[in-house]
This record gives sequence, C-alpha cells and structure tokens, in this order.
Amino acid sequence: MRRLIKRWPGLAVGATALITVGTTGSAWADSTGAEFIPATLEGSDVSFNLLWIVIGAMLVIFMQAGFALVETGFCRAKHAAHVISTNFAIFGIGFVAYFLVGFGIMFGGYTATIGADAVPVIGTYLEPIGRYLINIPGFGALFAWAAPALGGAGYDVGVMAFFLYLAAFMDTVATIPTGSMAERWKWKSFVGWGFFCGALYYPLFGLWTWGGGWLSQLGNNFGLGKGYVDFAGSGVVHAMGGVAALAGAIVLGPRIGKFGKDGKPRVLAGHHIPMAMLGTFILLFGWFGFNAASTFAATDPRFAVVAANTAIAAAFGATVGMLWVMKRTGKPDPGMMANGMLGGLVAITAPCAFVPPWAAALIGTIAGVLVIESIWFVERKGIDDPVGAISVHGVCGSFGVIALGLFADGKYGAGWNATGDALGENASTGVTGLFFGDGGQLVAQVLGVVVIWTVMLGIAFAFFKIQNAVTKGGIRSDEADEIAGLDLPEMGVLAYPEFLDTPSAIDRPATSPPPVVEPAH
Amino acid sequence: MRRLIKRWPGLAVGATALITVGTTGSAWADSTGAEFIPATLEGSDVSFNLLWIVIGAMLVIFMQAGFALVETGFCRAKHAAHVISTNFAIFGIGFVAYFLVGFGIMFGGYTATIGADAVPVIGTYLEPIGRYLINIPGFGALFAWAAPALGGAGYDVGVMAFFLYLAAFMDTVATIPTGSMAERWKWKSFVGWGFFCGALYYPLFGLWTWGGGWLSQLGNNFGLGKGYVDFAGSGVVHAMGGVAALAGAIVLGPRIGKFGKDGKPRVLAGHHIPMAMLGTFILLFGWFGFNAASTFAATDPRFAVVAANTAIAAAFGATVGMLWVMKRTGKPDPGMMANGMLGGLVAITAPCAFVPPWAAALIGTIAGVLVIESIWFVERKGIDDPVGAISVHGVCGSFGVIALGLFADGKYGAGWNATGDALGENASTGVTGLFFGDGGQLVAQVLGVVVIWTVMLGIAFAFFKIQNAVTKGGIRSDEADEIAGLDLPEMGVLAYPEFLDTPSAIDRPATSPPPVVEPAH
Amino acid sequence: MRRLIKRWPGLAVGATALITVGTTGSAWADSTGAEFIPATLEGSDVSFNLLWIVIGAMLVIFMQAGFALVETGFCRAKHAAHVISTNFAIFGIGFVAYFLVGFGIMFGGYTATIGADAVPVIGTYLEPIGRYLINIPGFGALFAWAAPALGGAGYDVGVMAFFLYLAAFMDTVATIPTGSMAERWKWKSFVGWGFFCGALYYPLFGLWTWGGGWLSQLGNNFGLGKGYVDFAGSGVVHAMGGVAALAGAIVLGPRIGKFGKDGKPRVLAGHHIPMAMLGTFILLFGWFGFNAASTFAATDPRFAVVAANTAIAAAFGATVGMLWVMKRTGKPDPGMMANGMLGGLVAITAPCAFVPPWAAALIGTIAGVLVIESIWFVERKGIDDPVGAISVHGVCGSFGVIALGLFADGKYGAGWNATGDALGENASTGVTGLFFGDGGQLVAQVLGVVVIWTVMLGIAFAFFKIQNAVTKGGIRSDEADEIAGLDLPEMGVLAYPEFLDTPSAIDRPATSPPPVVEPAH
Repeated sequence: MRRLIKRWPGLAVGATALITVGTTGSAWADSTGAEFIPATLEGSDVSFNLLWIVIGAMLVIFMQAGFALVETGFCRAKHAAHVISTNFAIFGIGFVAYFLVGFGIMFGGYTATIGADAVPVIGTYLEPIGRYLINIPGFGALFAWAAPALGGAGYDVGVMAFFLYLAAFMDTVATIPTGSMAERWKWKSFVGWGFFCGALYYPLFGLWTWGGGWLSQLGNNFGLGKGYVDFAGSGVVHAMGGVAALAGAIVLGPRIGKFGKDGKPRVLAGHHIPMAMLGTFILLFGWFGFNAASTFAATDPRFAVVAANTAIAAAFGATVGMLWVMKRTGKPDPGMMANGMLGGLVAITAPCAFVPPWAAALIGTIAGVLVIESIWFVERKGIDDPVGAISVHGVCGSFGVIALGLFADGKYGAGWNATGDALGENASTGVTGLFFGDGGQLVAQVLGVVVIWTVMLGIAFAFFKIQNAVTKGGIRSDEADEIAGLDLPEMGVLAYPEFLDTPSAIDRPATSPPPVVEPAH
Repeated sequence: MRRLIKRWPGLAVGATALITVGTTGSAWADSTGAEFIPATLEGSDVSFNLLWIVIGAMLVIFMQAGFALVETGFCRAKHAAHVISTNFAIFGIGFVAYFLVGFGIMFGGYTATIGADAVPVIGTYLEPIGRYLINIPGFGALFAWAAPALGGAGYDVGVMAFFLYLAAFMDTVATIPTGSMAERWKWKSFVGWGFFCGALYYPLFGLWTWGGGWLSQLGNNFGLGKGYVDFAGSGVVHAMGGVAALAGAIVLGPRIGKFGKDGKPRVLAGHHIPMAMLGTFILLFGWFGFNAASTFAATDPRFAVVAANTAIAAAFGATVGMLWVMKRTGKPDPGMMANGMLGGLVAITAPCAFVPPWAAALIGTIAGVLVIESIWFVERKGIDDPVGAISVHGVCGSFGVIALGLFADGKYGAGWNATGDALGENASTGVTGLFFGDGGQLVAQVLGVVVIWTVMLGIAFAFFKIQNAVTKGGIRSDEADEIAGLDLPEMGVLAYPEFLDTPSAIDRPATSPPPVVEPAH
Repeated sequence: MRRLIKRWPGLAVGATALITVGTTGSAWADSTGAEFIPATLEGSDVSFNLLWIVIGAMLVIFMQAGFALVETGFCRAKHAAHVISTNFAIFGIGFVAYFLVGFGIMFGGYTATIGADAVPVIGTYLEPIGRYLINIPGFGALFAWAAPALGGAGYDVGVMAFFLYLAAFMDTVATIPTGSMAERWKWKSFVGWGFFCGALYYPLFGLWTWGGGWLSQLGNNFGLGKGYVDFAGSGVVHAMGGVAALAGAIVLGPRIGKFGKDGKPRVLAGHHIPMAMLGTFILLFGWFGFNAASTFAATDPRFAVVAANTAIAAAFGATVGMLWVMKRTGKPDPGMMANGMLGGLVAITAPCAFVPPWAAALIGTIAGVLVIESIWFVERKGIDDPVGAISVHGVCGSFGVIALGLFADGKYGAGWNATGDALGENASTGVTGLFFGDGGQLVAQVLGVVVIWTVMLGIAFAFFKIQNAVTKGGIRSDEADEIAGLDLPEMGVLAYPEFLDTPSAIDRPATSPPPVVEPAH
C-alpha cells in the first residue's frame, strides 16, 4: 500500500504479475509459484522481496507473544490465564475474520482507486472480484467489497504474502483492547470483538488509507502533501487499537478496587514483572519486522534507515522514560520504562522511513515523556487501563502520525499514494513535513488523526455499547467472578494452581500494595 | 530432499558445485565459501538460497524453546526443572549424535538413489564417503552409511547449511517424547533416547523418505503419484515423534495419581498457563522456518504460499479448537486452544506447499477438532500423555500426510522425488491428491503412515522396552522421587525454590483440582 | 570492520557508495536510500547484504531478552524486578551513549588507518567528521573522535545498518556485568556504567580492533598473521564484558550470605530455572545473528559455515558440560548445562568463520569443561558472580580468541585487516592458526587477550573504583535493601507481589538450600 504505483521493482513485491511484464516470462505463467521464476534479475528480485515480506510477517505475528506477556505480567495472577488466553485466541479469531471478510474489504477495491493506467499491482488480482458499494469517482472508495480474497485469482504468491503481512497487522489492532479491558471482560464478548475487528473495524480505516481510499487521496484531490501517509501504522494500526481500547475501557468501567471511595486511583500491581519485560523485548524484536519490512522490498535499502530509526526511537523512549519517571517519582518504575520504549516504538512507526536519525531520537524522547504523562492523565480521568494501552497506542500513535507531518525530510517517498507523475522517476520530492517546508502534509496527517478519534472511536464505542446492550448481563464479567479472578469461572483453569492454591489466595486483594507510583505534584 | 534433482536453481541451494557448472567459476573453486561467489546472478541466487536455509534453521532451533515451555507449563511445578532440562539437553544430545552418525546415514547414500545422471547435488559431496549396507537396485537404499559427514568433502557451505537445517528437524523428533514421558522419566534413560533418536531413529525413516530411499521411490517404482511426499515433515518429523511418544508413554505407564481407582482420569493441572502459551507462540513463530524455508530456495516464491497456508491452518486450528472445546465442555480451555493451533500446524506441515488456501483452512479446521477428541480418546484408553504429544504430533501428523494425498492440487511439485523426466522442465504435473484426480498419491501417503505406525512405532517400542530391561530399576523414576518431584532427586535443584519452598509444598498433590475438562457426553 | 577493504562486494554492504563506483548509478546519487538502487546485480547484492546486517542486528538485539532472563532466573525472587530492569534499561542507556559518542570514536578515524588508496568504505562517510586525538603514523589510531555520527554524511543506508548492528554488540558488552554485579548494585550507579560502556569502554577496544586500530595492524606492522582477528567478538564483546564483570564483582564484594564464616561458598539458588533456560534458548537463537551476520554480506556464503559451527559448538558445549557436571557432582545441574552451551557459544564467536566443523566441536567440548571449572575456581577465590558471567564471557571469550590462533585453517579471511595486497584477489592465504602453520597469528591473538586482561580490565576496575569513591555511600546497595530485596527500595515494585507477598517471605534467606553443587574432590 503506501506507494503502490511508483515503486518498481519494490512494488513488484506484491505484484508478481510484473514478472511477465518485465520479462518474456514464458516459464512463469502461473503466479501461484508453481514454476520457478525465470533466472533473471527481475525474477530474483521479486522473490527476495517476497521473502522479506514473509520474514516481516513472521516477526509481526511473533509480536502477539509480546503483547500477551506484557498484558499478563501487568495484570494480577488471578486473571492471568484469562488475559493470556485473550491474547492467544485473538490471533486466530481476527485472522479467520480477515481471511473470510476483511482482506476483501480493505483491498478489494484497490485498482479502482489508482486509476485505469495503473501498472498491474496486487489489486489486479483482486479486481475481478472487487465490488464497490460506494465509490465516489475522483475521490476513492468509501466502502469496497471482495469475495473471500484468497480463492480464485487471489491464489498468487504476491497476494498471499501481502495477505499474511496485513493480517498480522490486523491482529495487532485487535489485541490492543485486550489490555485496557483486561480482568473484567467476558470471554464470549471478547470473541465478538475479535471477529468484528478482523472483518470490519480495521479493514474500513485500512481501506481509506492503505487501500487507496479517500484519506490516501488527500494529496491528489486537495493538494495536501502526498495525502495521509503512515509508513507502518502509528495510526492505521496503533491509534486505531488505542481508541478501541479507550472505547472498551469506558464501556466496561474500571476494575473493582481500582478507584477508592475518594475517587483516587489505587495501584493494582502487576503480578509478574519479568514476564512483562520479556514481552517488551519481544515487541522490540518483532517491531523490526513491523517497520522495516514495510518497505515491501528487499531491494529498497531504505529498510536500513527504518530499522535504525526504530531502534533509536525505542532506545530514547526507554531511556528518557526512565529518567522522567525517576524525576517524577524517584524510582525507575519498570512498567513506565517498558511503556517508554513502547511509546517510542509506536510513535516512530508512521515516520520511520521519512525522518533523519536525529528526528527519530527526538520523537522517541517526546514519546517517552508523553506516554507516562498520558497514563497518569487517563487514570486521573477515572478510566482504568490496566496496561496503559490507550496511552501507548492511542496517544503515542497519534503523535507519531503528526510527527511525520512535522519531521519528514523529503528524502523518501516521492510519488507516495500515487501522487504526482506517478509512473515517472523523480517526479517529485519525497514526503515532506512542516519543518521541511510542506504544511499541507501536516494537515493531511492531522485529518487522519481526527478521523481516528472521531469516526473510528465512535464506531468502536458504538460496537461495545450495542454489544453490551444485546448481551445478557452485558459484556462485563460478573462481579463475583471478577473478585475471585476470571480464571476458574471463565477459563476453567487457574493460571498457577500451585503458586496460589488456597481459596483465600485467589480472592484476596493484593495486600500491602507497593507505594503508589504517582508524580509528586 | 523432497525434490532433489529437478529444482534448479532451487536445488542449487544445497549444491554449491552448481556454480562451477553454471559459470566459469574460476574464482570459486573452493566450496567451503573461502572465496566470494563470482558476481553472477547464479552466484547471488545460490548465496541467498543458502541464507534462507540458515534463517530457517535458526527458527527451527528456536522452536526447542517453544517445546520446552509448552511441556513445562503443562506439567507440575515439582517437576519443572526436570521437564525444562530434558527439552534443553535434547538439543545438544541429539545434535551430537546426528553430527557423528545420523546425518551420514540419512544422506550418505544419496546419489545412489537418484541415478548416475544426476546433476551434482548435495549427495555428491557425501558420495565418496557413502557406504550402502543394503541397497536394492531399482528400489533404493534401505540402510546407508557415511563416515562423519562434515569432515572432508562435507566441509562445504551447501552441506553445512543443509546439515544444520536437518539437524534442527531431528531435534524436534527427539523432543516430542519428553512431553508424553514427562514427570516420571529417569534422566540417564532420557539421555539414551536422545542419542538413539539422533543417530538412528530419525535418520532411518529420513533415509527412506527425504534421503531418496524406498518410500520416496514409490512413484518411480510403483506408479504411486510422486512417491511418499512430505514437504516439511508432518510424518517424517511429527508423526515419527508422536509414535515414539506413544511407545514411551506405554512403557513408562501413567503418572501416579493420573487415574483413580475407578480407572477414570484425573486432571493433574499444568502449573503455569502463561508459560505454555508463550511456548505455543514461539512454536508458531518458528514454524514459519520449519515450513516456508523447506523450499530450500529464496528463489522459489512458493514459500509465500507455504507461509500463508501455515498461518491459515494455525488460525483455523486454534479458533475451531476453541469453539469445539467450548461446545463440549462450556469453557475455552487454554490447553485445548493451544493444542488446536499446534494440531493445525502439524497437519499443514506436509501439505503446506501443495494445497490452496481454502484447503489449508479446512485442514486446520479438521485438525482443531481431531486433536481435542484424540486427547480425550488417548486418556480414555488409560495412556497418560501429560501434554497431548501423541495426539498433536502422532495423530495430526498422520492426518497431515494423508491430507496431502487428498487436497494437493497439482500446481506445485512437478518432478518431486525425481519422478518423471526429472531433468526437464514441465515434465509432468505437480503433486496431485485424490480430490484433484490422483488416487495413487493417496496410496503412497497412506503407506508412509502405515510404516510409521507399524515399523517405526515398533522400533521405538522395542528401544524403550530393551532399555527398560537393561537399566537397573528400569527407565521409570523411583516412586518416591516422582511423588516428591523429580527436581531435587534428579536435577539437584528446585525449579522454584522460593515459590514452593516448604517440604509440604513440594510433595503434596495438587489440592482442590480444577473441574475436570472432559466432554459432557 | 574485520576485513574492510578486500571484501567486495561483501564490503559493499557497509559501503553504499560503491554502487556509484561500480555502476553508472545516476539514479542512486542519494545514499540515504531515497531512490531505488538501480536494477543491476551489484545494486541488488548491496541491498540484500544490507538486509542480512539488519536481520542480524534484530537477532542480536533480541539477545538482550536472553541475558535478562538468564540473569533474573539465576538470581533470587526478591531482586527479580531489579535484575530484569537493569538488563532492560541497559539497551537504551548504552544505545543512546553509543549513538551520541561511541560510534564516532570507534569508527570515526576509520579511513586514516587503511590508507589513502582505500576504496570508499564506511569510513568515508565518517571521515570528514573524524578527528584523531592520537594517531601514530604507520601504527594506527589510538584515539579517534567523530561528531555524532549519524547526522550529515552518516545519514546513509550503509552507515545506519552498520551502526545498528554494532550498537547491538555494544549492548551485549554493557549487559554482561549486570550478571556478576546482580542483587547488590545501586540503580544510579548501574546507569553510570551503561553510559560509560556505550560511550567509551567498548568503543576504545573496538577502535583498536574492528575500527582499524593498532591491534588490527599487528599483521601489517609486525608480521603477526593478519593482526588481531576476532570474527564476531569472543574478545571484543564477550571477554570485554567478562573482565568488566570481574572488576565490578570485586569492587562490590560478595552478596551477603554468599560465603559462610568459614569462607566456604553457599548456594544462593536461582529462583526460576525455566526462566533461565528460556533465556539460554533465546541467546542461542540470537547468536546466529551475532555470528553468521558478521559476514556483513548475504553474498558471502561462508555464513553457512559460521552458522553450522555456532550450533556445533553450542551442542557440544551443552552436552559435554552436562556430562562433566554429572561426573563431578552426580547431577545434571541445569545452570551448568546452560553455562556449558553459553561457554561453547562464546568460545566459537571469534573463530566461527575460520575453522572446520571438527574444530568447532572440539572448541565447544573444551569450553563446556572450562566454563564449569572456571565457575568453581572463581567461587573458590572468594569472588561472587551470581550467574557465572566472568567464566562464560571472560574466560571462554579469551579461550575463543586463542582458539582462533590455534585452529584457523587458512581457508577464509585472505586480506583480513587490510593485510597483504589488500585490493587484489587471492593475494594471500586466509587466517591461519598455529596448528595449520602460522604461529604469528597466535601471537597476535594472545596479545589481544593480554590487552583485555590488563588495559581493559584496569580501565573497568578504575571506573568502578572511582565511581564507588565519588558516589555517596558507594555503588553498592544499602545492606538493609539487599537483605530485604532490591525490588521495593530501588524499583518501587515487587517482581511478584502475589507469589511472595508477606514481609517474611521477602527478607528471609532461602531456607533448606539445595545440596551444594560442588565437585566431589
């Protein structure tokens, strides 16, 4: 997505048909990969580009383990089997929904949006099965549709690699609310969210941005830079997950005991700090696939800048977060350090390909402070987010989208979103932010963030509200179950039947809680 | 293995000598990688293909961590150091045996089986040191032998990458019985199994299938499709491990307390659900290396289909498994969800390269149900398999082999196992299952499964029986040790000396067990 | 580094400017990766080589999780949040220091040391900003300097990939002392070490070896083989970390209770064996990136030899370590098995590219015994190293450097360290150790080890001594904090507030310790 026309042979990654364009290709008529790509440079490049996407997809899928551990470690032991199981099950639930429905929506209308003169790209394969429910000419698809995308013409190595990578991104969106809604969410209600997110929620905003839809066309249609640009999804993935996390947390309400009678927040301490730290490391590791493989091309060496920027933002986010929480509370709270790194990672995800290293350091620095202050802010507002998902993904994701509009230096991304003379080389400069001279790009970015925090937040809120209304007893667990811990009543097992095996151990509140980690203000 | 002749330059992966065939190659006379490959397209392709194998090997080796965590998490805390240590030690024990003996057996006789007109492939390097104990002309090697394969001519970049990848697969076979035999297996007896598996058990069936032996030649000799086909080892690895797990579990007998006086199974609850879930995620991650890198070629873009099919089967297996166990017991048991995903992964391992995405979804769906019903069936038969290894690997592995014989669509695998006009392109159609018109392929697959469940199960059973007879006191731990937990008596340490530090905590049975997760039938 | 001139196009990895040398390159004037590399074989090769470095960097960064888990698992629960947090925070702290200062020191003076006729390599970009504090003509830089390296000319895809990879190596050095100094180190003092290591400690020895400095020039200047050779850092990374770990452990002194009144060591048992084992597996996994990606080139198939040798040494180290500890104590102590594998991995890190597989097996075998005996030796000397970091990294790392000087077979590494006719092919034989005829190489290796154990150990010791003197109360935690556990007083949280939640559980010493694992001599 991102820049689906111009990038050749990078684009060829998701476009195996290009082989037959670029070469005689007689031996490779079957794009299912049945025959070897002919031994040409273009053939090898396409195959290696596909490999980079597949490696990236593996890494992003492995991030599910990271989310699972972070969320479980920062929750309490009596809910641990429930929390880890939501993070486990979401992989399959969201994936199945995206396979059956979501992918077709997100990319089913693709070619329509990039014009009739487009070179054959991934959309070509989906085009014959694409249907446009609402397609405003010259503006792009609002709603698209495709039959289950991986049958028929979608049985193509390019489409399948692309599907796998995008499905992994979808699962990240879907898993974020399991953090903010942890410890009080009914299993069956959670399952419903998983299908909704994979089938509709992510694909809709995905269509508008990466699928060639109207936000991606803000440049072509209104002269706003290259349109909404989001390299690997600070907005499309993380802010999208973050606002859903906010909606869910509001609908569920805070956990029993989170806020005292005076309305002040209490610490419900995470039960396993090493688990949460391991999860953070796994996320850092997987994030290189998330960001760097979003070049879609091993032949696009910009992945090196992306990978380094990702690590730089993570390092500055973690270190500045550590210093900030020490300054504010006197202690290097492990949870805040972890969230500092994650905030840096989320924030660099959109701009990672477009900014110089010093800007990555600055973005990480800002995110490291922002995420901590935001966690305290959310808590002060009476919203209970056990793992800080709203702040990490929603707030830092939105900051990342805007940071692109500020710091993009114009070196990379010429022709993005099919802007300008899309088929010519050097047709225009790269994506350029306000500080490098293009205020229009910033406007497009802000617009994307506004849509996420209004339309998409509204959709997520409506989903949880409606689900809450139509579900017998609502989507929140029974009070007795929550107090006892969700593990036995919801999952049928205890996470640790031998470490906490007395009934009193299960339902007691954490005694002698650690000092509240609050700013000394 | 798989298709060692036809695939060029894919084959070149394990065949660096091809460089000197395909190019003037004067600068690269030394296949140890001492000199750079000349800057030709063939040279680059070979190097990148080798890289894909090495990356795949890393991922498969990392799967050892997944097995270790799944098995340890689903066992009890008093045995945790023992269980994790068997999974740790098996990596080295099996590897050393395979390095010294097994690799030579499995591939030592390779060239003999593919004929004198073979292009130089990996076997060429081993050929001079290959010895055939029994080689039936026109039928293939039954027993082959090679001196330690990595000295002399085996000191070649292609051979070493290939060795590393295959050794990692061997370790998967070797580690599977540590699950079914957990909590009651003497350490020294376990060490004996590790050497046996790496030196003989895996290499024997490996020779018959991937090493060019008689099962691989069922196509050439008896017209049964392409002969036994198993892309990444549903049979050669997983079912092989699964039947050894069955044999070991029978010889050891059930754990003390597993079956009540009425013969009904009791739940001996796993002590750490998040640990087991993390292990499952690591297995999913590593499985992409297991399956997708089995193309042996970065220039064979079919890896994209393989990777996507792998994820599809995993997602459907996990989701359908969740729904099935909810329907049968009312709860989304975390262990069953994990086994649903693993069942899907095991089942897709053989057919992943040969079936369309919808078939991957169907195979995952069937495996998700099959694994759960099989676990209950094994338990009802009075066999104690603490982690479900027999069902996950033995049953779903066998199903996967057969599923290939049903769903292979003929798009991929022309010339597999050196069938047909092996050196020509497009000499024949790909691997084709019953539903796409070739019942012979299904017969070859069923034959492979039958051999695993008769010959190989018999060999494993005989090994454990003989070992049991010649070991003083047998291969099962002392009863007192088992009751107290194997950690202190066998390993000399406790897994968690501070969480369960009172003597009573160590030797007590789990009190107030969670509700039995059994179907309500 | 290593061999920065000769290796072409491998070298091109870190040297994107070569593209414009090797091709017309008109479309790729901007080395920031803004434009696609032209579709030439050289262009594709460079991009894939960069990709291999980036993948390697990811893997090495993931090793931080391995170190964190090994160290935390082998420490006690009351310090677990502190130990894991040091391992977490060091990633960012060291990285920031290396980004701002260290990278410039290590490679800022690069081109000066390889002569004016050098082809444009990575140093070219740094050269304009390089400053040489002390540069002895014909001998190399002792101290170099560069302004923050990633601004200006350093904003290049080659430089950024190279920076990322080297930064990950630096973090390994920095994290090693967190093991030997665990359970008694003040947080703020630890933070100081992190900045010092990333800014000065690692870059200094890095400059002398990989940065083209005087140790690397021992061949050119004194005829000692190819000069100091260290493929992936047995010395530059591991021994460097190990001697710092020794210095720190001496300055801190042993933990309270480690040595009895009779001076004999007591076992302070690790609190979580599965955690430590998982960490070891993660290290094994990441080590493939550490070693194999140090070819800096996907076009240099020697990575296959490197990867296989790495696994072989790990397998032999673990297995021989297991057998050795069983022979000496009667039990397969899990900690010793893990350290056996890690010892093998550390030892093979320098020689992995230069030795045949049988030598890798031998090196692993020796390391598996050496590490265990060394751990007991260090303990007998009254030095408390909770996780064995001094032995694993310091001793086995030094052994690895020397093993290269013994077993290197001359097949690989011609022209290393810009020796001989550096720009010609086949100018000389590869790196050759004593057993293959070049005693001079062994002398260079021994010299490197001597410098590490004198100069660098002295610098680390001085750092900790001075820091101890200028820090109020010294760098060691308060006695009361250490007894209670560092988690609450230093971090503000408990690692496991629910598993060990009574005050008595927190401050009690481990009761009924497991049998002392000591040799029966």
